[in-house]
Amino acid sequence: MLTALKGNILEALSPDILGVHPNSYLVLENGAVVGIYPDLPENMAEASVEDYGDALILQSFADMHLHGPQYEFMGTGMDKPLLQWLESYAFPTEERYADPAYARDHYRILAEDLIRNGTTRVAMFSSLHTDSTLILMEELEKAGVTGYVGKVNMDRNAPPYLCETTEESEQETLRWLEASKAFTLVKPILTPRFAPSCTERLLAFLGRLKAERDLPVQSHLSENLGEIALVGELFPDCRQYWEVYDKYGLFDGRTLMAHCVHSDERERAAMKLRGVHPVHCASSNNSLMSGISPVAQMLREGQSVCLGSDVSGGTTLSMLRTMANSICAAKDRGSMMQDTAQVISIEQAYYMATSAGQSFMGYKTGFTAGERLHAVVLDDTGLPKLPNITLRERLIRAVYRLDDRHIRAVYSEGVRRL
Amino acid sequence: MLTALKGNILEALSPDILGVHPNSYLVLENGAVVGIYPDLPENMAEASVEDYGDALILQSFADMHLHGPQYEFMGTGMDKPLLQWLESYAFPTEERYADPAYARDHYRILAEDLIRNGTTRVAMFSSLHTDSTLILMEELEKAGVTGYVGKVNMDRNAPPYLCETTEESEQETLRWLEASKAFTLVKPILTPRFAPSCTERLLAFLGRLKAERDLPVQSHLSENLGEIALVGELFPDCRQYWEVYDKYGLFDGRTLMAHCVHSDERERAAMKLRGVHPVHCASSNNSLMSGISPVAQMLREGQSVCLGSDVSGGTTLSMLRTMANSICAAKDRGSMMQDTAQVISIEQAYYMATSAGQSFMGYKTGFTAGERLHAVVLDDTGLPKLPNITLRERLIRAVYRLDDRHIRAVYSEGVRRL
Repeated sequence: MLTALKGNILEALSPDILGVHPNSYLVLENGAVVGIYPDLPENMAEASVEDYGDALILQSFADMHLHGPQYEFMGTGMDKPLLQWLESYAFPTEERYADPAYARDHYRILAEDLIRNGTTRVAMFSSLHTDSTLILMEELEKAGVTGYVGKVNMDRNAPPYLCETTEESEQETLRWLEASKAFTLVKPILTPRFAPSCTERLLAFLGRLKAERDLPVQSHLSENLGEIALVGELFPDCRQYWEVYDKYGLFDGRTLMAHCVHSDERERAAMKLRGVHPVHCASSNNSLMSGISPVAQMLREGQSVCLGSDVSGGTTLSMLRTMANSICAAKDRGSMMQDTAQVISIEQAYYMATSAGQSFMGYKTGFTAGERLHAVVLDDTGLPKLPNITLRERLIRAVYRLDDRHIRAVYSEGVRRL
Repeated sequence: MLTALKGNILEALSPDILGVHPNSYLVLENGAVVGIYPDLPENMAEASVEDYGDALILQSFADMHLHGPQYEFMGTGMDKPLLQWLESYAFPTEERYADPAYARDHYRILAEDLIRNGTTRVAMFSSLHTDSTLILMEELEKAGVTGYVGKVNMDRNAPPYLCETTEESEQETLRWLEASKAFTLVKPILTPRFAPSCTERLLAFLGRLKAERDLPVQSHLSENLGEIALVGELFPDCRQYWEVYDKYGLFDGRTLMAHCVHSDERERAAMKLRGVHPVHCASSNNSLMSGISPVAQMLREGQSVCLGSDVSGGTTLSMLRTMANSICAAKDRGSMMQDTAQVISIEQAYYMATSAGQSFMGYKTGFTAGERLHAVVLDDTGLPKLPNITLRERLIRAVYRLDDRHIRAVYSEGVRRL
């Protein structure tokens, strides 16, 4: 069955190239992209057209780092330093997700809010609770959110009510992986919370599991200076933070590493060599004063940087706002260093918010033929009409001015979900 | 006539003290504040009560620096440096305000959007066009926005289509001041655009006018390094930027100076001595990469810092977002300097967004008895209920998460406007 979306189509073809198709047709066959055409080709004339007029049709968003159980307290505790924030907000809240009914109620809201904000792909941390993690996967899949969810592993340096024994962590991980087979759109991703929260035995177990089952992995890397010092103490045989993950086979092309704020040249070179995907989390880096990531530099080095809202160290679920926050953080870094080379472009922000995540998940970038449609229709037609404004300029404006009110439609896996 | 608003009342009593009145009555007599009471006193029992339930009742916002004619292109050109941005966006748009009908249409929208966002006090730049400036004042007054509007003076260093002769500028200023007498809520404020756009003769004229008629004044100060260098060239007899304004009597307790990003110790000491009010514009300082203002330092020095959206170097009209942007900018400065003393508190952000502007306008801070009510009702009851969350924490969360959708009522000069 042929269908088509008509509007102003914008693709993130590369970190530097925005594909611009004014007033064009995005043609689909059974939900998969056929191509983009200025006019509907004759042999596709029977396609049923959804005409979005002068609205913008973008790739939908990929939020490559967020914590599901933290969503409910987003925006609170933002005046606390990291440790106090974890103890007062993050950990006590995560504990409540031991209760599957509580988890169900909250994860349903999260899944719906993701779609409402145009996010159709995620890489998300759950809590350590297996059953609630499965509920999160189910609720995401029901709402049309695709991607990866991880049951968190923590067998040390966690509050007693959120700490597993190594055996429990291993067994529950296996049980969770088995039960995850029920899902088709949401897949499991191994999730050692971060190096300090896992014993070497647990990391070794996860590394073996990754190798045996070809699983992806997500964790945190070089988020703040205190954490880096702690890793140094806990793993004295590793010269740098990344080497802990690398030692256990958890550092390759199927790995997402959140933050990387303080990754120096050597650590960044290791990421590049291994094909690790850094996830830039501008909002939480700001809130928790972790530092400002050298994201422009990482992009210049050819790192495949993704964006993460990092709810709820981050203060917004909106990837539009997350793009704006990323641009703002880069400018602040540039201002303080008096170095305009720190700035990132709208092309780079849009690519990191969409195609970079697609790419991690094994999909082609942009709206590539054969891929099932993931798209969002952004209606900026209520904003002032400006003479000679380009579509690129409308994308910049959208990032600063639009929110979920302006998201008119969301497509995930070829299906309209909003 | 006695009336009362019931809800959780939050006052900005000083930059460090938040007045917190859970579930209380804000009693008014003919729109003027009588007091805040945990229970309705017996002798006020006849007051008709507007019950806002569990919502937050805040002072409404004072946006102490924005450019009326720039609102329409807010969010565009944010990837351009200052000069190119002025030439491509700001100046060509301002030119259109030569047409009073065009101005009327656009200023009506701006005035309504201000109220919708809870801003009831402003200090605003118009363009150089006298008639359109009067239209702006009229539209603000109609919508219930109070404060100051200035016809801009520019007799050099401006594009030809936006440059007055000195005589024109003087005569039109006098004509505008005369016609401004028609307004009661919106008052004129002298507005040399910035030192480089005015000849010394024009500055001297404005200084005399200020003294003769006891008028307030607003301008820009030390926004970016290029501008500071230009001032040095144009006014070789002035050692520092502020001395230009000071030389002509435009630098005292009735003066607003926008930005002050690069004001050093000496310039800040002069502001403090004269009682000049700096206006912090975090969003545009970021967008145009002017730098990050040392606002925490200025507050420590006892400067009466106000906040400005600086539409449209700034990307938002919302003062909630402007507060968030101010907190974020201070954290970015702190991160880059590894100095937590750069951070500002929610108390400081809220004070700068409300009471500081009230104070400049000659009103008492907070909800003081005798002052006509300026208030906004923020309904955060749709956000997750968190156990033991304090009203202060709800204010922090509101700044990050709420927008005009959550503004349930707005009062200006004792009258409900939304």
